Amino acid sequence: MNMVEMIEKKKRGQALADEEIAFFVDGLTQGTIPDYQISALAMAIFFRSMNERETAMLTRCMAKSGDMLDLSCFGNRCADKHSTGGVGDKTTMIVGPMAAAMGIKVAKMSGRGLGFTGGTADKLESIPGFCTNLEQNEMMEIVSQIGLSVVSQSGKMTPADKKLYALRDVTGTVDSIPLIASSIMSKKIAAGAPNIVLDVKVGNGAFMKDYAEGKKLAEAMVEIGRQCGRRTIAIISDMNQPLGRNVGNTLEVIEAIDILKGTAKDGMHASLRELCIELAAHMAVAALDISIDTARLQANMVLENGSAFSKMQEWIQAQGGDIRCLSDTSLLPISSIKTDILSSNTGFISAVNAENIGHAALLVGAGRLELTDKIDHGAGIVLNVKPGDYVKKGDCLCTVYSNKCADDAFQWAEKAFEFSETVPFKLPFIYETIA
Amino acid sequence: MNMVEMIEKKKRGQALADEEIAFFVDGLTQGTIPDYQISALAMAIFFRSMNERETAMLTRCMAKSGDMLDLSCFGNRCADKHSTGGVGDKTTMIVGPMAAAMGIKVAKMSGRGLGFTGGTADKLESIPGFCTNLEQNEMMEIVSQIGLSVVSQSGKMTPADKKLYALRDVTGTVDSIPLIASSIMSKKIAAGAPNIVLDVKVGNGAFMKDYAEGKKLAEAMVEIGRQCGRRTIAIISDMNQPLGRNVGNTLEVIEAIDILKGTAKDGMHASLRELCIELAAHMAVAALDISIDTARLQANMVLENGSAFSKMQEWIQAQGGDIRCLSDTSLLPISSIKTDILSSNTGFISAVNAENIGHAALLVGAGRLELTDKIDHGAGIVLNVKPGDYVKKGDCLCTVYSNKCADDAFQWAEKAFEFSETVPFKLPFIYETIA
Repeated sequence: MNMVEMIEKKKRGQALADEEIAFFVDGLTQGTIPDYQISALAMAIFFRSMNERETAMLTRCMAKSGDMLDLSCFGNRCADKHSTGGVGDKTTMIVGPMAAAMGIKVAKMSGRGLGFTGGTADKLESIPGFCTNLEQNEMMEIVSQIGLSVVSQSGKMTPADKKLYALRDVTGTVDSIPLIASSIMSKKIAAGAPNIVLDVKVGNGAFMKDYAEGKKLAEAMVEIGRQCGRRTIAIISDMNQPLGRNVGNTLEVIEAIDILKGTAKDGMHASLRELCIELAAHMAVAALDISIDTARLQANMVLENGSAFSKMQEWIQAQGGDIRCLSDTSLLPISSIKTDILSSNTGFISAVNAENIGHAALLVGAGRLELTDKIDHGAGIVLNVKPGDYVKKGDCLCTVYSNKCADDAFQWAEKAFEFSETVPFKLPFIYETIA
Repeated sequence: MNMVEMIEKKKRGQALADEEIAFFVDGLTQGTIPDYQISALAMAIFFRSMNERETAMLTRCMAKSGDMLDLSCFGNRCADKHSTGGVGDKTTMIVGPMAAAMGIKVAKMSGRGLGFTGGTADKLESIPGFCTNLEQNEMMEIVSQIGLSVVSQSGKMTPADKKLYALRDVTGTVDSIPLIASSIMSKKIAAGAPNIVLDVKVGNGAFMKDYAEGKKLAEAMVEIGRQCGRRTIAIISDMNQPLGRNVGNTLEVIEAIDILKGTAKDGMHASLRELCIELAAHMAVAALDISIDTARLQANMVLENGSAFSKMQEWIQAQGGDIRCLSDTSLLPISSIKTDILSSNTGFISAVNAENIGHAALLVGAGRLELTDKIDHGAGIVLNVKPGDYVKKGDCLCTVYSNKCADDAFQWAEKAFEFSETVPFKLPFIYETIA
């Protein structure tokens, strides 16, 4: 097997054989292929793409390149959930307890936040005592007992993906659908669940800015899942507005608690609640083999009857978190400087730009630019208005929480709000479900 | 300046700014850009190409990245000649003395052979005592006195091109017209001549297999020359047949001597003689500012009246070569095993495949696969027939010279000869001249 020949082959638009892909991934894992050949192949793949077989093979090989989680003891009752990331996306903290309350086993690996996209592991660590660094056997024990555990991604999983992603990041080869799809799915395949529900975000606050591209990514991931023998469903949802009301680690934990307690049912939380029900329902359809209508009813029920909130309490306690915070969220760390951003316009809110809000949250310390940066768990933004609301000059648009002077963040936050003189057209929130 | 942004820009099909190209070449020279970014950019350039300005800028920057030869003391009388390489291409050894005999100053840097393509420096070293490693001042002194010097390429010239080429070679990014054109022309620009005549070979024995691609390369190089203020002419000539009769280092020196002596005027040498006259004439048109008709007459004259051969003697002596070899070529090293390849067919020769002959020559030791391989100067092939000749079974097609058992070389040589029952169509030899 010869890397130069493989690069030439892909460059001419030919499909790589399974053995060639296996050789490539093995070289990534062992470190036997020079970086300049990896990046040249990645660029050729950007231009020539990969077919479904190639993409599935790449995923399978990367999944097998390191440790894999064996969830076979749970049979088909196990489901995983993955979001491609956005601003204010706290769905895992809501959907996890909902699914567990419905009888689904959820053993979830979660990432760290980077750029304006948050990571569930960071958010959960806002809860005093909560531990995301569990050993595999501890995680399995918790899932076995209460049905849900969320841990930070193990350093020993998918090393080939880590190597390839790190190189793509510095060689302008990130935005290739088969490479993105295989990167995400390799981690999901290694994480072991037989059922996978994907939340593909599209819009200015998401990695995929464009609906058509997001749909292609969703289709590619569902196809990979199919070829790897995993039941996979993708929901394409909007990320032009932040998801829900709160952005920032502690603030998102509080919103998740409020949703699970049933105290956050107004319009500011409607989309978030709708999406969580949809995600939990699709996990149930796959893992429990029930109809989507029944699944939606059950998902709604576990929110209404408090069983999802009880499950959250069990879960937080099982991972060492201080559950007094769930009853009294004022015990959670919140940054000391609170600044209301007031409207200098009068009119209808036509948009709350997710990317701008995400950028503002990043500037107050809620996110990180480099994976080694420290974050301020208590920093963030609470939105006061949503698209369609009528706002008068001087009304509060949002409140910014920070521990430092953050004039630039205020500017970013303020310019997130767009106005119109007439009632704006309401875009769909969940665009499509691909199964 | 940011390499990832530059890669993204080129990937989207945008032109790079002059400052970006300068930054890239500086990074190549200083070693400050990681290999994986260089190869990713090269692959993006393969797919998106570069416009004329970008290609000229890349060339200019690579030319300036190391030592440059200053030939300004010779004014416009100076001309350089470059061949893209082929099988049996001994034109430099003939055209050099012809041009010098016509009053042109030729200070030529020459490469080593690689693959089935020979290098003039290797060929000249077949002559006992001939030294290709001259200091710059020695070279200038010889050019000043007798008008011609040929030395092997200095290690200190165009380091950026060396770096980029070495990476392209191992990342499947060799076959990009702007990258090939800028690589060749950067060396020519650094070599200092105000007039450049390019011999672009097309056919199975050349780097460019295809006429259309060869024409694009010729046009790209002529445009670079124009933008860099060098008068540049490209001749596109055929390399489907070996050039002339002899292939191999000593054997090609002998054929060059025979052409200059006027003893090789038959059909076996006709194309070679025609091409040498054409190349020398175009050098004269540019360097001496005479018409092409006058230049052709003069080029023919220096061959006929022996002045080109006298110039060869002066030149070989000036570089330390034993000039007795020029009067008595049996003093040159020739490999001891001489094998006639006999025809097993009767009919007209329709083709003598240059690539196959080149491969046979490589196998007997006339060339090298790696730049560190040793070559056998005395090995090679002398052709006995040319396309259009009528051959009977048992006639000698060619003679192979070697110092080792070379059955595989005989097979390659034999299958180079193609037969037809009717007189074959004669292809043009010089396709086009681009100025």
